Amino acid sequence: MDTKSKIEKLRALDREFRYLNKAIGVLQWDQETYLPESGVEERSEQLALLEGIAHEKQVDPQVAQLLNDLGSSSDNPQGDPKLDPLEQDYLRVLRRNYDKAVKLPVDFVSDAARAAGLSQAAWVKARQDNDFSVFLPHLSKMIDFARRRAAYWGYEKNPYDGLLDSFEPEMGTDAISAVFGPLGDRLSSLLQKIAARPRPDSSFLDRDFDTSTQAAFSREIMGKLGFDFGRGRVDVSAHPFSTTLGSHDVRITTRYLGRQVQSGIFSTIHELGHAFYELDLNPALGLTSLAEGASMGIHESQSRLWENVIGRSRPFWDYLYPSLVSHFPDHLKGISCETFYRAVNLAEPSFIRVEADEVSYSLHIIVRFQLERDLFQGSLRAEDLGQAWKDKMKQYLGIVPETDAQGVLQDIHWSMGAFGYFPSYALGNLYGLQFWAKMQEDLPKVQTLIGEGNFSPIRSWLRDHIAVHGARLPPQELLKSLTGQELSAEPFLSYIESKYSELYGL
Amino acid sequence: MDTKSKIEKLRALDREFRYLNKAIGVLQWDQETYLPESGVEERSEQLALLEGIAHEKQVDPQVAQLLNDLGSSSDNPQGDPKLDPLEQDYLRVLRRNYDKAVKLPVDFVSDAARAAGLSQAAWVKARQDNDFSVFLPHLSKMIDFARRRAAYWGYEKNPYDGLLDSFEPEMGTDAISAVFGPLGDRLSSLLQKIAARPRPDSSFLDRDFDTSTQAAFSREIMGKLGFDFGRGRVDVSAHPFSTTLGSHDVRITTRYLGRQVQSGIFSTIHELGHAFYELDLNPALGLTSLAEGASMGIHESQSRLWENVIGRSRPFWDYLYPSLVSHFPDHLKGISCETFYRAVNLAEPSFIRVEADEVSYSLHIIVRFQLERDLFQGSLRAEDLGQAWKDKMKQYLGIVPETDAQGVLQDIHWSMGAFGYFPSYALGNLYGLQFWAKMQEDLPKVQTLIGEGNFSPIRSWLRDHIAVHGARLPPQELLKSLTGQELSAEPFLSYIESKYSELYGL
Repeated sequence: MDTKSKIEKLRALDREFRYLNKAIGVLQWDQETYLPESGVEERSEQLALLEGIAHEKQVDPQVAQLLNDLGSSSDNPQGDPKLDPLEQDYLRVLRRNYDKAVKLPVDFVSDAARAAGLSQAAWVKARQDNDFSVFLPHLSKMIDFARRRAAYWGYEKNPYDGLLDSFEPEMGTDAISAVFGPLGDRLSSLLQKIAARPRPDSSFLDRDFDTSTQAAFSREIMGKLGFDFGRGRVDVSAHPFSTTLGSHDVRITTRYLGRQVQSGIFSTIHELGHAFYELDLNPALGLTSLAEGASMGIHESQSRLWENVIGRSRPFWDYLYPSLVSHFPDHLKGISCETFYRAVNLAEPSFIRVEADEVSYSLHIIVRFQLERDLFQGSLRAEDLGQAWKDKMKQYLGIVPETDAQGVLQDIHWSMGAFGYFPSYALGNLYGLQFWAKMQEDLPKVQTLIGEGNFSPIRSWLRDHIAVHGARLPPQELLKSLTGQELSAEPFLSYIESKYSELYGL
Repeated sequence: MDTKSKIEKLRALDREFRYLNKAIGVLQWDQETYLPESGVEERSEQLALLEGIAHEKQVDPQVAQLLNDLGSSSDNPQGDPKLDPLEQDYLRVLRRNYDKAVKLPVDFVSDAARAAGLSQAAWVKARQDNDFSVFLPHLSKMIDFARRRAAYWGYEKNPYDGLLDSFEPEMGTDAISAVFGPLGDRLSSLLQKIAARPRPDSSFLDRDFDTSTQAAFSREIMGKLGFDFGRGRVDVSAHPFSTTLGSHDVRITTRYLGRQVQSGIFSTIHELGHAFYELDLNPALGLTSLAEGASMGIHESQSRLWENVIGRSRPFWDYLYPSLVSHFPDHLKGISCETFYRAVNLAEPSFIRVEADEVSYSLHIIVRFQLERDLFQGSLRAEDLGQAWKDKMKQYLGIVPETDAQGVLQDIHWSMGAFGYFPSYALGNLYGLQFWAKMQEDLPKVQTLIGEGNFSPIRSWLRDHIAVHGARLPPQELLKSLTGQELSAEPFLSYIESKYSELYGL
């Protein structure tokens, strides 16, 4: 076989692996949206089997043989230097994925998938009933699986480093601590200054908003922002998420609270940001492992940028508010756009991460990061997580949730075994504002565009500078090549301090 | 390995095969209900891959080895006579499935699955646009796949025999012709007598009925008939179907026309009949290949029994009509239950099979059976199907559809390659009334039960006499052991002639 045929063969094997992963995605999406309650147990078995088969595809000895033949090794993942750059990037990504996957026994992968299915179902019930004890045995299992996963992968100092690396390559515990430390201090200090100022009125948000009208408005926003419903959908689930089930089938979910109309709106825009990234990946990357986001942090940079920097901006609501009023004329009678804008940007400590404002959001992440770090360093036990949660909330946000449903049970991530994911959200805030600063050089009138509802130049810029690369560039390299900078909290902090100084007259 | 362990091992392999099939089912269900338009092509690839993997599981050499070790061969499928009866039945079913599957090359299975996905999408479009030419190339491919499938399986006289056998074991072209001949004659003659009588008023059905109110009423019917929404769902698709995605996850789809409220009602009850059969399979059959319906004909006996014998009966509407009126008070103002009952039992030639009355329904099936038979005998070409359809409709129903959408394009079956399926519907009518006659011996007050909305004795009887056996008994054996009779059209014809003599005063 010549080089070209070898690469083609690799691509064909990779495509099969990815088709299986998409099938798994369909089953998971269904589980979160439409699966009847009693179907959960067999669904877990179905998923466990598929995960096992997908894993076997990924570690097919043919893959190793082809990678080796093409000069790719763990030390020289990109292979033969005579290959063209796209092919070298492809080999690098495949080698990294293969090296990680081959270390995990197939039974381990199946067992973990089966346990995750049951664990998620237990979490849903535990959160509903505010009963941590229902979830604890599952949580302990998920921690144990994560620990073993990290051990299979190997790590330098802390199993947590191994877990972090799988979501954000080359970002270990120490690197994240170094960024999160000063970030936490500046945000805490800003939050305190805000607390000393008068609280904007937001009482008009605390009313019953019909959820089907909310859903109609969300679909309208999606359309206005440019979502093509021929290439995706929106549904409702307990925990909003986005999932890519095909390069032309990217789905988001959201949730509508009976009160607090802004919750569903910002969930929708957040997930839409993820969806745009996936929908706008360069088709030239093919249906291969290059057609993925660069990392979870980069993914979150897109979602949080759309949700916050765009979606919580004044020009965005100048544009959209009349339409919201037309959906809820009675609720918003006499409420000016400026009043609404200030209400949805109200900053104050609160319990639920996904409902948090831009100032306190990253503090929620720092709480979770520290808890995860302590769990995997062994200084914190699963059964003590509920109390540790309360202590950290007190320390960083100054408030203590009364119930576990408002505390340790609020997020889906741990129930799925996704330890090490949370830091991506705060990293996303930082990457996002670094990208945004760069975008403003190219699109100096971006605020005007937003005010006119003309989002396509923004989406095109993000596509041409970020999505175009898919997984070709590791996150730090993407950041460096696009902005000329290393990871920095400065652009984010400067944005947030300026926005909130104006809002609260600091 | 001892005998017990060998059977356990077979069961474990079988479960994996079935989990894969359920995963395939989820992807297919999603394709019919929620898949975005542009996602169809990759979905076909995903399905093709999964079908290939499932097929490989089914023909795993371990299965053959274990079957052989347990004394099962093609000539002695049930294996060692010292095995207990349940185990013998299990081996017989597995051997039949294995023998059929092993004859099909894995590439053939994948290719056929991929083509079926694209073909279904083309059919949807062709039907929408009333353009047979869009569908024809796909139809030709599906016919070719079916022909090759029959050739792989082998057949005595006609490839069509092989196809029929996969839906209804041991019912070949000749056996079906022998039953359908007199059935067609008696029904045609009944239809002619009816045509000479005054037509009942049904104009009040030809109004706009809000589809979300229809959906709410359908859910209410499902609840009243005893459907447990914790073990299933109802959704909307272009063509109603039921699918089993787990032993506690049985889903139906239906469709609501803007006019003709009865259409969605009877589709729902029909699919519900399928769902009850699947939900009520004996749990002792385990998650194995015994936990299936006995055949498609037996399956249709359940759905058509619920839809027609129960759902189109006078006591059923005595019970349910007030509730329908409360959903549509304006539409049904001044319409008595008797008038409604007569309108939904109106018999006359019409174009669409799924909307057909009980008298003409089987004639639609006879048309399709003859077209399929001629196609596979080689006396009819795919491109001539549209015209042949019109000719047969003229011959059996005396009417000719003006468009292909109302003719050859109306059914999904051929687009999926399911040639040989249609006869099951008419066989289901016959089996159903044979079962019903037997049930009336055990439940002489069945009409009273229906009138009281007390359906659980009926469902229990069907469960204890039919669903309990799953696939343990082949259809003819099930029929014989339960009713003491061979297949006969007599109970059905006597039911239909008596019902319609009363309705039309013949």
